Amino acid sequence: MNPPHSVPVATRGPVRVVGTGLLGASLGLALSAAGVEVQLDDASPAAVALGRDLGAGRPVSPDLPDPRLIVVATPPDVAGPVVLAQLRAYPAAVVTDVASVKARVAEHVEAHGGDDAARYVGSHPMAGRERSGAAAADADLFAGRPWVIVPSARSTPDAVLAVRSLAVDVGATPVTLGAQEHDDAVALVSHLPQLAASLVAARLREAPETALALAGQGLRDVTRIAASDPQLWATILVGNAGPVAAALRALRDDVDVTLEALERAAADGPLTEGAAGPLARVVAAGNTGVARIPGKHGGAPRRYAEVTVLVPDEPGELGRLFGEVGEIGVNIEDLQLEHSARQPVGMATVSVDPAAAARLETELGLRGWRVVVG
Amino acid sequence: MNPPHSVPVATRGPVRVVGTGLLGASLGLALSAAGVEVQLDDASPAAVALGRDLGAGRPVSPDLPDPRLIVVATPPDVAGPVVLAQLRAYPAAVVTDVASVKARVAEHVEAHGGDDAARYVGSHPMAGRERSGAAAADADLFAGRPWVIVPSARSTPDAVLAVRSLAVDVGATPVTLGAQEHDDAVALVSHLPQLAASLVAARLREAPETALALAGQGLRDVTRIAASDPQLWATILVGNAGPVAAALRALRDDVDVTLEALERAAADGPLTEGAAGPLARVVAAGNTGVARIPGKHGGAPRRYAEVTVLVPDEPGELGRLFGEVGEIGVNIEDLQLEHSARQPVGMATVSVDPAAAARLETELGLRGWRVVVG
Repeated sequence: MNPPHSVPVATRGPVRVVGTGLLGASLGLALSAAGVEVQLDDASPAAVALGRDLGAGRPVSPDLPDPRLIVVATPPDVAGPVVLAQLRAYPAAVVTDVASVKARVAEHVEAHGGDDAARYVGSHPMAGRERSGAAAADADLFAGRPWVIVPSARSTPDAVLAVRSLAVDVGATPVTLGAQEHDDAVALVSHLPQLAASLVAARLREAPETALALAGQGLRDVTRIAASDPQLWATILVGNAGPVAAALRALRDDVDVTLEALERAAADGPLTEGAAGPLARVVAAGNTGVARIPGKHGGAPRRYAEVTVLVPDEPGELGRLFGEVGEIGVNIEDLQLEHSARQPVGMATVSVDPAAAARLETELGLRGWRVVVG
Repeated sequence: MNPPHSVPVATRGPVRVVGTGLLGASLGLALSAAGVEVQLDDASPAAVALGRDLGAGRPVSPDLPDPRLIVVATPPDVAGPVVLAQLRAYPAAVVTDVASVKARVAEHVEAHGGDDAARYVGSHPMAGRERSGAAAADADLFAGRPWVIVPSARSTPDAVLAVRSLAVDVGATPVTLGAQEHDDAVALVSHLPQLAASLVAARLREAPETALALAGQGLRDVTRIAASDPQLWATILVGNAGPVAAALRALRDDVDVTLEALERAAADGPLTEGAAGPLARVVAAGNTGVARIPGKHGGAPRRYAEVTVLVPDEPGELGRLFGEVGEIGVNIEDLQLEHSARQPVGMATVSVDPAAAARLETELGLRGWRVVVG
């Protein structure tokens, strides 16, 4: 379903993928599509067969040539030992892994790898989806995503280059970080948000239907990733327990300050001395933090004009809207679709160049759309 | 910019709006557009003038006829006293307020209103935006949103009907709840998510740039509402301190369980007995909660097939995509745009009827799009 990449790739095969789950099979698909020979290895013969049938590569067998590059895509808790075994089995190969937590794997290889450790470079492609397994594999999974490269002090330049080329060849953007630096970063930008989404969603378990009927876009956004796989996340959180615990402790300290202010306000009424201050500070601190998240393309958040349009929920209406925005010749920088409980109407907010907003508003109005300039 | 409503409205003017901020001015715009006479009142003459200039109504003056319906749209902490003053000043008028917290206002009116309380009915239009003030006003602000109606034990049927008609006339969907029932509900679906978003975003204040560069859609979704106004939210949280404190206490208990498991795993390593279990349960509890959030139109979440397309970030590309989806004749049920740091490519995921997904995938592929079926 994906046309083969037309750009020449730097990766020289054979590439062996150990672990043919979502990441491994997706990597196999992307490399195979680029004409690179891929060998598939997995503890489960059925998983290997599925990967082969999907076109991700051929099953490993004794008559295949030795791999030049080995990608360990097993569950994170076994990545270290598997990396070591591959380094020993193929003394000429560069080995990387794609585990979402890096310090533990790096320490394991450093502690037990000896000189072989020079051929190991850690990886973390920032790619994934709610679904897992080879069946969800996708040659474009890495396209446009950051791919963190974690060289050790002993990694050779050739090994780093091989892993960097792999990232570029599957369309990702290489970002080099130290192992601990990576683990601290994902604790803040990935693991803590996952926990917060799960904790807020958990409170909805006993909520009455009438309360859930008032759910708006805010709740939907905050809890979207709460649908993620518990087993996978338990492994990730245990693997990055230290940094996640540090982030969660800091969050709990803020919770305690907030709770103390709320409890005093609940006891003493709206004019409670000093209750509003701490609460305003908590929200203001959030303002400061969210403003630091880079906007598109890693740049500072860019300001766009928002144009909101009411869209009847009828076949083709949304398609018609965006078709007409395209005809008007305005580029949509971002968009958000908001649903309203029990109403056959949605609101589509498109972010556009402020210079084009007025024209878009006028043109859409002329075409009969209910438009609101944000 | 909004064509006047063509449907006849049940609301009989004059309607007096006390407090011409975002909600008051938006209400004035919607009613004026429907041909209802609106009188604007605000402690700030400048705010009244702005509302008038926007077309939200005319400033109050002694020579105007008495209002039939009065909408108190002041900050929530003064709503109670203002409602009482209006009930006394206009003995024939029905009075409502739009404060986002209801029990406190209801108790105040009940305690001090005497027989006047029979003409009071509480309201909470579930509408708002990150921006505030009359300048952000919008006649369509209430369109398709739930509007909670909170009658007291003494509210007359006529008063309830008048407020209900107001909600319907501005395009909202009336939902009747008790005051405490409402406050408990918004604590869970609105106030707790706001705090969680702020608390997670606050952790990003001291994060290194390299960490923020790894931010993905998950973090962006969880923290989007962290951009909200601290002063407004402090008032809301103080006003609903009891229910919010109860929800936050329950969340903190889960945080403590999670933290305990993380700290043991950090100390004892990946094979720590009983560390993964509690963490998996926290995420699983989130799965259960998020699954209860109603989907479109208040129904149970509907299953759609997802089709993901890589979209070059060039003018018109996204518009062209949705235009072609429209041409293909497939209705877009929902959509999500994902940005990738430092890459001129975005991923648009459209949710469509599973029966149409294969055709859409084929057609888009034929038109040269990089398509992935989710």
